[in-house]
Amino acid sequence: MPLNGVEAADTAFILICAALVQLMTPGLAFFYGGLVKDTSVLTMMMQCFISMGVTSIFWFLFGFSLCFGESVGFFGNPWTYMALRGLSVHEALPGQSIPGLLFMAYQGMFAVITPALMTGAFADRFRFKPYLFFIVLWLLFVYCPWCHWLWGGGFLYQWGCRDFAGGIVVHVTAGFGALASLFVVGKREIPEHEKDHHRKPHNVPFVALGTALLWFGWFGFNPGSALACNGVAVAAAVNSEIAASVSTFLWLLIEWIRLGRPTLIGLCVGAIAGLATITPAAGFVEPSGAFVYGLVATFFCFASCELIKQMGLDDALDVWGVHGMGGWIGSILLGAFADSSECMGASPPSICLNPGVPPYRSWEQLGKQTVATLFCSVYSLAVSWVLLKAISMCMPLKPQSLHVDLHEHHEVAYHSPIRSYMPGTEQKLQHQGSQESQSSSSSESWF
Amino acid sequence: MPLNGVEAADTAFILICAALVQLMTPGLAFFYGGLVKDTSVLTMMMQCFISMGVTSIFWFLFGFSLCFGESVGFFGNPWTYMALRGLSVHEALPGQSIPGLLFMAYQGMFAVITPALMTGAFADRFRFKPYLFFIVLWLLFVYCPWCHWLWGGGFLYQWGCRDFAGGIVVHVTAGFGALASLFVVGKREIPEHEKDHHRKPHNVPFVALGTALLWFGWFGFNPGSALACNGVAVAAAVNSEIAASVSTFLWLLIEWIRLGRPTLIGLCVGAIAGLATITPAAGFVEPSGAFVYGLVATFFCFASCELIKQMGLDDALDVWGVHGMGGWIGSILLGAFADSSECMGASPPSICLNPGVPPYRSWEQLGKQTVATLFCSVYSLAVSWVLLKAISMCMPLKPQSLHVDLHEHHEVAYHSPIRSYMPGTEQKLQHQGSQESQSSSSSESWF
Amino acid sequence: MPLNGVEAADTAFILICAALVQLMTPGLAFFYGGLVKDTSVLTMMMQCFISMGVTSIFWFLFGFSLCFGESVGFFGNPWTYMALRGLSVHEALPGQSIPGLLFMAYQGMFAVITPALMTGAFADRFRFKPYLFFIVLWLLFVYCPWCHWLWGGGFLYQWGCRDFAGGIVVHVTAGFGALASLFVVGKREIPEHEKDHHRKPHNVPFVALGTALLWFGWFGFNPGSALACNGVAVAAAVNSEIAASVSTFLWLLIEWIRLGRPTLIGLCVGAIAGLATITPAAGFVEPSGAFVYGLVATFFCFASCELIKQMGLDDALDVWGVHGMGGWIGSILLGAFADSSECMGASPPSICLNPGVPPYRSWEQLGKQTVATLFCSVYSLAVSWVLLKAISMCMPLKPQSLHVDLHEHHEVAYHSPIRSYMPGTEQKLQHQGSQESQSSSSSESWF
Repeated sequence: MPLNGVEAADTAFILICAALVQLMTPGLAFFYGGLVKDTSVLTMMMQCFISMGVTSIFWFLFGFSLCFGESVGFFGNPWTYMALRGLSVHEALPGQSIPGLLFMAYQGMFAVITPALMTGAFADRFRFKPYLFFIVLWLLFVYCPWCHWLWGGGFLYQWGCRDFAGGIVVHVTAGFGALASLFVVGKREIPEHEKDHHRKPHNVPFVALGTALLWFGWFGFNPGSALACNGVAVAAAVNSEIAASVSTFLWLLIEWIRLGRPTLIGLCVGAIAGLATITPAAGFVEPSGAFVYGLVATFFCFASCELIKQMGLDDALDVWGVHGMGGWIGSILLGAFADSSECMGASPPSICLNPGVPPYRSWEQLGKQTVATLFCSVYSLAVSWVLLKAISMCMPLKPQSLHVDLHEHHEVAYHSPIRSYMPGTEQKLQHQGSQESQSSSSSESWF
Repeated sequence: MPLNGVEAADTAFILICAALVQLMTPGLAFFYGGLVKDTSVLTMMMQCFISMGVTSIFWFLFGFSLCFGESVGFFGNPWTYMALRGLSVHEALPGQSIPGLLFMAYQGMFAVITPALMTGAFADRFRFKPYLFFIVLWLLFVYCPWCHWLWGGGFLYQWGCRDFAGGIVVHVTAGFGALASLFVVGKREIPEHEKDHHRKPHNVPFVALGTALLWFGWFGFNPGSALACNGVAVAAAVNSEIAASVSTFLWLLIEWIRLGRPTLIGLCVGAIAGLATITPAAGFVEPSGAFVYGLVATFFCFASCELIKQMGLDDALDVWGVHGMGGWIGSILLGAFADSSECMGASPPSICLNPGVPPYRSWEQLGKQTVATLFCSVYSLAVSWVLLKAISMCMPLKPQSLHVDLHEHHEVAYHSPIRSYMPGTEQKLQHQGSQESQSSSSSESWF
Repeated sequence: MPLNGVEAADTAFILICAALVQLMTPGLAFFYGGLVKDTSVLTMMMQCFISMGVTSIFWFLFGFSLCFGESVGFFGNPWTYMALRGLSVHEALPGQSIPGLLFMAYQGMFAVITPALMTGAFADRFRFKPYLFFIVLWLLFVYCPWCHWLWGGGFLYQWGCRDFAGGIVVHVTAGFGALASLFVVGKREIPEHEKDHHRKPHNVPFVALGTALLWFGWFGFNPGSALACNGVAVAAAVNSEIAASVSTFLWLLIEWIRLGRPTLIGLCVGAIAGLATITPAAGFVEPSGAFVYGLVATFFCFASCELIKQMGLDDALDVWGVHGMGGWIGSILLGAFADSSECMGASPPSICLNPGVPPYRSWEQLGKQTVATLFCSVYSLAVSWVLLKAISMCMPLKPQSLHVDLHEHHEVAYHSPIRSYMPGTEQKLQHQGSQESQSSSSSESWF
């Protein structure tokens, strides 16, 4: 079969980028899962992982078409690509150089991770069943419209707004959806005997693992959004690395100065803040702009996380402060740092996309970006709140027990018979009642 | 040096795919390692990791040539590519567009993971030394012939049988090898005091990590099997994602309905079942066929796992039910869902490989696939059983202790002095005997 | 914008390779983090992760230019590419086929991981603040000169020395820097009550995870160093896999014979030794040479690790023995195994880079490689020692407490309230003092 408009190198690149973005959802599961208690880590991970099932199915059947079909009012036409019809592995969609089916699959990875981003906000406080209903409705009424309006040729795109890899479509929608959830599910209940280990993450290395996988996957998320292995992809990779390294180090420094100690969790949160903030601009700005993005990300997101705490809202894992406000400021600043109107900058110009095509560095662009970002914040907050309230009328949202994993999923994350087998104890164990007390006295030689 | 028939984009793609498949063996180690007890996790991981050493060496010296050398009866000619001679980084093998040495390395990754798949069946019941002998003999007498017959131009290939990325060559061989091992090593012994935590996985997040790495690596396993970054690779990626998402969600639902609770482990097993089932067909079917594959994978593999339990066989980590029977049904169904005879289907056709070349969607293809799959099941079961019996005559297969890690490898997976250092306890610890009892009373302020 | 000398396939390949190398630093964090005690795992991980922040910033501002600017004496000219000026996403540097900014980003990943390699030597004995000063000074005075001399067109390159992917630039510099640190920070103090679990790794599966990520990332590290997806990249991938598999298996065997048991940690260390040793030669030797490299790596590195122990130096995680001496012997042997002078070897020649261009297989090359490697060993040892001594005069290097995480970072790696929520205990817990003793008696039904 002849390939129509498909480039082999671009296809190879986006195939691998799709795999990288695929790995981000598990990365998020470890980032969030490590931060919660070991009695709700599985609940948290399942809410991330199940999106790879439910959202993908939704995406293949209707989602892609609602986002990227030809505009019919609010959405894309659901019939255009319903159940993937009209998409080919041999033919590119107009203006692209990769097969239509690959574009669909790559975009699907973005849809999968976006609702999972919200789970960190309502950690320990959301049951699995209402969560499933919530993400499907949320994808339909929040993600799909915004994806269509900005990436699928909808009215905001036509007006000149831009979002390179998901500052608005991914991070603002999820961040403000997370904010809405806080008004519905309220604070975590901390029993008296638990005060001491409240908010203590159960496994900090898992947080680091999640950060590593997310950072790694972001090399598919941002550069891949160029949809080709061209200069824009390279710019997106370099800019992402710059913003992330700056915010990683600065967040650590701020904590060090303010709290007296640098922490691994602070370092990890800083990295994610930088990556989220550069996302809407990764392929549109010069590397110097990415430095500024890293600086702004740190201070703005750090302040946002402090602010929400002082407002008395219990955003368990800082989803609003990091993702919501990172994407928010990053999307707006695009108007001030985009560099494409006349390909100014370094000589030779380090980035020059399509001269004469938005985004421009201009007051006009800044205004449009601000309007779109504010509109998205309010829209996502309001619609998510309505959806959650509606679901809460049909079924209880909050789990009955503090040991969420056990009561919701009949699973316990860790199970350690290791002590029972210490040398010298095996014999005793079969005759005595308490394994625990036995092994504690004899385990010293091995532990 | 001029490149003879080598395409740069294809080379880049397969180089990265080889890396992705390489990561699957450690992924498997975490998937299996999380599911077993913390007293045998290292044994399990070593049996996976050592395949990256032993199988690779075997592959470089003889294995590749036995699989892909010109047919001489049972095997490929071991002299053709012995110790990699005749393979080049500049020249492609006939009909390919990547260097011969890269094709060798990529195929080697498949050989590495296949014997490791079996380890889940005989968890806790197989010593390391006989395992090493087993996998080398198994590769020689089971993997190499089947790889040659289906992928190396052997008689089944010539007869018209097809296996896109290893439904028969990888999953059926390993699944039925695993089944054979159950007849030789028997059930796990469960001591009286251990009944309560029998079959409790020691680290569920590790199972999730393993699933994530396997799913990620499958983007190299299936799309890479196209051996080029063309439409077939894209189809394989999309189909894999479709089948995996359907089976992920459905397996969860079945468990939810039957057992009353959705579990993370069920979700993970479902994902692997879908991916294993689509493997033989990933580049041959339309996306609609992949949906059906996802559905079939779930019900067929779930039923197989139930069946083997009822038969009283202790397939510890469901290798036969998930990999063996997933690959089995997927390979047979290829005859019903392949789409290449006349490039029917969507308009524009979403997949149209090589018109006039098998696999066809036909009764004939269905018959051939069934014969090959059944033959492989019986062959692998019988030969694996003979090999295991033979080895068991030379050395004991089963470890002497329930703490397999300690007795086989002198290693303990986890070692936690963390409590000894809690503030206020350091002083005491140097004067008193029992660390354990000391720290337990004072640890509350930190834990 | 037209692309000047940029090839799309090469760009795609190096973009992904950069992501792979990026993942190696977290991989190292898990490799080292799993090997130390759970009271210093976070300290270890932070020292690795922070390099992704600090080193990257250093690299973007000055580092790249110091390494790859035109030679002005000791360094490259810091003004040439200061703050990334003069680098483009559209234009390749002379002699390359990828954008200049991408080359910068890819090389930056090497700079990030190199100082992190040293952290394993001084585990438990280095505070975070002096570490930050150390790595910046070390990059400036050790990494940048050596990178410039060998990769940036400096005098050793011009003399004919070669280092394919960092045997000298990465592994010898870091290995001997690690050795220097041992003379400054001394041995770990082992309190009396801790003798039993001294040197016991706290989480062996994390070591395996780190190994898996490092091995995976090495597919970007070595093949990517070809800077194009050509035959050299393929050779580097195949040779890396060969050397790693041989040393993985052999190291295990040596341990088995000498210590009586094969261990997972031995297997993992063996893999890293093979990969480190092949690094300087990966794209220069025939596959048969890679076999020899794997053999030599095992025996030479194993002996080095034994030697340093007998010398009474406490190289906690064998950085000198594995990385330093692996890179050392690998760099020297290049003179004996390089294959480019007349493209001899297999027919068709499996590797034939640029006939008539070094490295040659010759006594001359062997001599030059030996001189450069010895010079680097002495240079890195001396300069690192001076830097550490200087820093130690300004601030204390060693932490005050054995619970380094808690005292340096106010963080505890693991936090487990899981027992408090066991069924039947919740009620009691609110009335009684000791969670620990309560749960220990009732936990048997779940653990």
